[in-house]
Amino acid sequence: MSNLLHGPVLNVHALSNYSFGTKDVKMEKDTSVADRLARMKQNYMKEGMRKCVEGILLVQEHNHPHVLMLQIGNTFCKLPGGRLKPGEDEIEGLKRKLSSKLAPASASVPPDWQIGECVAVWWRPNFETLMYPYCPPHITKPKECKKMFVVHLAERQHFAVPKNYKLLAVPLFELYDNVQRYGPVISSIPQQLSRFAINSIN
Amino acid sequence: MSNLLHGPVLNVHALSNYSFGTKDVKMEKDTSVADRLARMKQNYMKEGMRKCVEGILLVQEHNHPHVLMLQIGNTFCKLPGGRLKPGEDEIEGLKRKLSSKLAPASASVPPDWQIGECVAVWWRPNFETLMYPYCPPHITKPKECKKMFVVHLAERQHFAVPKNYKLLAVPLFELYDNVQRYGPVISSIPQQLSRFAINSIN
Repeated sequence: MSNLLHGPVLNVHALSNYSFGTKDVKMEKDTSVADRLARMKQNYMKEGMRKCVEGILLVQEHNHPHVLMLQIGNTFCKLPGGRLKPGEDEIEGLKRKLSSKLAPASASVPPDWQIGECVAVWWRPNFETLMYPYCPPHITKPKECKKMFVVHLAERQHFAVPKNYKLLAVPLFELYDNVQRYGPVISSIPQQLSRFAINSIN
Repeated sequence: MSNLLHGPVLNVHALSNYSFGTKDVKMEKDTSVADRLARMKQNYMKEGMRKCVEGILLVQEHNHPHVLMLQIGNTFCKLPGGRLKPGEDEIEGLKRKLSSKLAPASASVPPDWQIGECVAVWWRPNFETLMYPYCPPHITKPKECKKMFVVHLAERQHFAVPKNYKLLAVPLFELYDNVQRYGPVISSIPQQLSRFAINSIN
């Protein structure tokens, strides 16, 4: 009973179980925040609300969960994921994005990503950087909806990361209460995961 | 399919569906934070880790979700809930606490509280006010574990609130990003609820 009440279990394997290589550069589509918001606006006119999906991939070190994140340059961090194509299924779209960001280019079959629970949904009411974990009152046409899913990693896996990114494993205690460095979405991952019974496997 | 992926649905009724009365004063056991931490320490020696349960009760106004909270004096807000007795079941304990804080004293049978999903778990590593949404590394004997559950309210219900408390309905947009006023636990309720498809019923 107490296990049921703890909610879903997350098996998390040691970082040392995973291996990491590189692959060709994947350029960011925008070189500035202003460019990004302008492109968002153009796409909105064509396709309506932007739908994004992101994956939370966990590993453990010293039995503490760490989140895999892509770093561009020396500061900005993001989760693997991205924009769905119009009409694309969320789970299929997230698998496509995970493969594009993290799977070896040589792989004949893409990894069998196990997409788990949706843990958070964030809304962008305007063509601005601010997002909220609810659609604010009086906003009838939000500009983006972003869903974050837990990804259950296999016990072992080889990742290949585009050369212009670094892949970091960031501990929950570093993300928590750190809006300044990680922004409101990523810094609240520890709260989103708190209901899971995390099973650290060595 | 898209509904499944939206995660669980939360039906939320209008605040005006509910009625509110008062009942006898329920004194707080402690008159200061220092007293509270001292009592926590004493109880820990006797009973081990403190286990708390709290309920998130939602209503809506203008189709925006509001959380019912108890206010003591003019500032401090808390969710209905409290400490489990040693060995007490979490769900039963939460029902007991909800009745003690919110049910009419005259009720011959307590309300049929519908306890839903566990949305967050917070840990207190030391006899201090700080809590974390994970058990911090190197902490083998946390002093408290607090679980927060969604409570699915009936379409209509009468509440009775002890005279020394006020019951407030606080909108998510007021809680969000407001650690200063509500503390880290309550201010992250909007993030915890973001994965639910909230169905506002008028």
